[in-house]
Amino acid sequence: MAQKPSVPKGTRDFGPFEMSRRNYIFNTIRGVFEKYGYQPIETPVMENLTTLLGKYGEEGDRLLFKVLNSGDYLAKANSEWLEKRDSLRLSTSICEKGLRYDLTVPFARFVVQHRNDITFPFKRYQMQPVWRADRPQKGRYREFFQCDVDVIGSVSLLNEVDLIRMIDEIFQHLKINVVIKLNNRKLLSGIAQSIDAPEKLTDITTAMDKLDKIGVEKVYEELRSKGLSQDAIDHLEPILNLSGNNTSKLNCLKELVGDTADGSHGLFELGTILQYLKSFNLKAKVEIDQSLARGLNYYTGAIIEVKAEDVKIGSICGGGRYDNLTGIFGLPDVSGVGVSFGADRIYDVLTELELFPEDAASLTKVLLVNFGEKEELFSLGILEKLQQAEIASEFYPEPAKMKKQMKYADQKQIPYVLLIGEEEMNSGKLTLKNMVTGEQKKWKIEEIIKIIGA
Amino acid sequence: MAQKPSVPKGTRDFGPFEMSRRNYIFNTIRGVFEKYGYQPIETPVMENLTTLLGKYGEEGDRLLFKVLNSGDYLAKANSEWLEKRDSLRLSTSICEKGLRYDLTVPFARFVVQHRNDITFPFKRYQMQPVWRADRPQKGRYREFFQCDVDVIGSVSLLNEVDLIRMIDEIFQHLKINVVIKLNNRKLLSGIAQSIDAPEKLTDITTAMDKLDKIGVEKVYEELRSKGLSQDAIDHLEPILNLSGNNTSKLNCLKELVGDTADGSHGLFELGTILQYLKSFNLKAKVEIDQSLARGLNYYTGAIIEVKAEDVKIGSICGGGRYDNLTGIFGLPDVSGVGVSFGADRIYDVLTELELFPEDAASLTKVLLVNFGEKEELFSLGILEKLQQAEIASEFYPEPAKMKKQMKYADQKQIPYVLLIGEEEMNSGKLTLKNMVTGEQKKWKIEEIIKIIGA
Repeated sequence: MAQKPSVPKGTRDFGPFEMSRRNYIFNTIRGVFEKYGYQPIETPVMENLTTLLGKYGEEGDRLLFKVLNSGDYLAKANSEWLEKRDSLRLSTSICEKGLRYDLTVPFARFVVQHRNDITFPFKRYQMQPVWRADRPQKGRYREFFQCDVDVIGSVSLLNEVDLIRMIDEIFQHLKINVVIKLNNRKLLSGIAQSIDAPEKLTDITTAMDKLDKIGVEKVYEELRSKGLSQDAIDHLEPILNLSGNNTSKLNCLKELVGDTADGSHGLFELGTILQYLKSFNLKAKVEIDQSLARGLNYYTGAIIEVKAEDVKIGSICGGGRYDNLTGIFGLPDVSGVGVSFGADRIYDVLTELELFPEDAASLTKVLLVNFGEKEELFSLGILEKLQQAEIASEFYPEPAKMKKQMKYADQKQIPYVLLIGEEEMNSGKLTLKNMVTGEQKKWKIEEIIKIIGA
Repeated sequence: MAQKPSVPKGTRDFGPFEMSRRNYIFNTIRGVFEKYGYQPIETPVMENLTTLLGKYGEEGDRLLFKVLNSGDYLAKANSEWLEKRDSLRLSTSICEKGLRYDLTVPFARFVVQHRNDITFPFKRYQMQPVWRADRPQKGRYREFFQCDVDVIGSVSLLNEVDLIRMIDEIFQHLKINVVIKLNNRKLLSGIAQSIDAPEKLTDITTAMDKLDKIGVEKVYEELRSKGLSQDAIDHLEPILNLSGNNTSKLNCLKELVGDTADGSHGLFELGTILQYLKSFNLKAKVEIDQSLARGLNYYTGAIIEVKAEDVKIGSICGGGRYDNLTGIFGLPDVSGVGVSFGADRIYDVLTELELFPEDAASLTKVLLVNFGEKEELFSLGILEKLQQAEIASEFYPEPAKMKKQMKYADQKQIPYVLLIGEEEMNSGKLTLKNMVTGEQKKWKIEEIIKIIGA
């Protein structure tokens, strides 16, 4: 009995229909990236484990897919770990490679490895799958796609402006209403400094990050449990309850943390970016969100996150500035800033809001019906003419029943069918059927090329 | 000390320059595939090992990259193999997944798994990387790209004709002169039958396959060593020394093997395909090659191989008809035919013959020089206008020295540079420099959009 075929848990096949939708997203994003001067790169699916391990925390290390060494891998395996059945430790002695976990670390590795061939500031984008051995669930896959765009080697805040403008234009094209949330890592440091508790930075931001989910009272509770004094919490209260437009938020924050070095620096950066953005006609709302703290250990300046307004779903794009990403690979002090678009979540948003364009998955414009041997060569000649005119066309490969051939055209959503029987061959006027309207009329091939090619 | 970053042996990074060349190849191939009515699919990078193992022979099984199970994989490992340090056997008990080895087996799996959603005949293409733990050498990688195009669910020879026409058109676009070699698996069976040695089919084809490399005398020697009688070898002699045009080859083969059932069937198929092709104006040479035997255990009808005429390199495209590919997954009697384009070898051919178009890797059309704070907002307004006109453009993010900014434009091969200083802001006439001719002239932004956008 043959096995029932399936794909590994958390992975997916993409048929023609899903491909056309995915390509719609990728092409939209790519088009904007390239219009702003970003160039594509691609890195290998496998990276050396030395490149990946230790970059994503302990949890990340666990979630890496590791690739077994070829050949007699046990000969070189660590005997102690093998005898102790220590799966975790043994893995690094029988595996040298792993599947990439994100596009950021491979990008940092790329920049350092090729630094002598790169023109800085280096504006690159990368659209490739990544893998995580997470428990699969609705909307979370073990193989999923990221679209990253970064500029590295420039500290100018104009780069942040560039990225935010691209985010706005991409979601405008995709017709998704979004809010772009902005924060700054230095502002977060300033907040911790303003209550004389710089060592509590992580506790404070972790608690603040939950504001949306658990509400302000629970955040206070958590802060108390982390050892913050009532004085400190009183000081944080207006920050947690920050409201109004960006200007009033900036003013309020200036009062509360503007006298700390980091706070003042962070507020300057936030203000400058917002000031630049005023001269552009953005469709997206851009708002300061002082509770935003994604990737805290990683970002050093701007923090950016994008939410869809009309769908309840996590962020669909996010990123920020990092001042020392390439340091881990021996190239310190290179500042970069970038964002990552979550292609799978964007796919889900477009599906839920029914925003995918109605184009058929098939690009074929016309199907030539196969009537049999007598009409075959004549039909092949017509096929050649259509294709030479760059019209995507197919000749049904077998003289099957008309019903079957029409069903084929229908299922592939081919808009025209061409019927070439004896009469058509004699008159040179071919019957063209419009599959949408059902209309049927005779034309010369030159006319048909004009009609379909238009 | 930070580690020196590198990629795993046999894998490669693709920077903007390589990407633009790779995209040139992929886009050319894709454009033709779609014009002929083929639709894209993609399958996951990882497949279940049960899907992959046993499909590529013992050697293939060894060359599969296996992915270590997550979690405590040793807990479920086979103790006997573990204690015996049996690397090969143990691997199937600690790995459930592997990286795909080609696109054919995943395609067969896809067809069977989704058979109820597929419109047959199913014309699909797939362009994705594959992995083999081969010893890396010049031109052979462990991660490389295949572009497969197949039609499944139709026995019509018109499909073979379709594929050969696509091969011709693709290499015409790429400006590579090619010979398309044609053979037929049934003809090979007929040859073995004609000397009453059907059981020697593999020996005969293996020896014949070496004709180009070792010469006819060595082939005779090999056949003798495999136990073929002098009579048999005398009968094979005219087949081995077959020459002349396709018609004379067909006639000669008809005489020698036309009275065997398989031989006659194979010759009919070969002849029919060649007859069809006469009605098209192909640029490539199509010639019968009776020694062609690639993938013998796999193909059942046509065998196709494409060689570049002006470069010494292995085949750059190949394939054939298979009558039972999906049988291994429980769906017997579905015939298909397809070919695979070797993107990496095509890349090497285009490089060697200097056939890549001279387009710059960067798509940016114009760089706006950054003069500093005073001109900044004005320049950003111009940037916005250019981008709204769909002209790819960049504003250098920092007021760096002119020389540095010009070098950036130069290295990215940006064809125009826009200089906006005080005078330009006052007059509204901006200085446009053509980076190719060095010419420099003042224009209004509306004029510039016309010049660059053209």
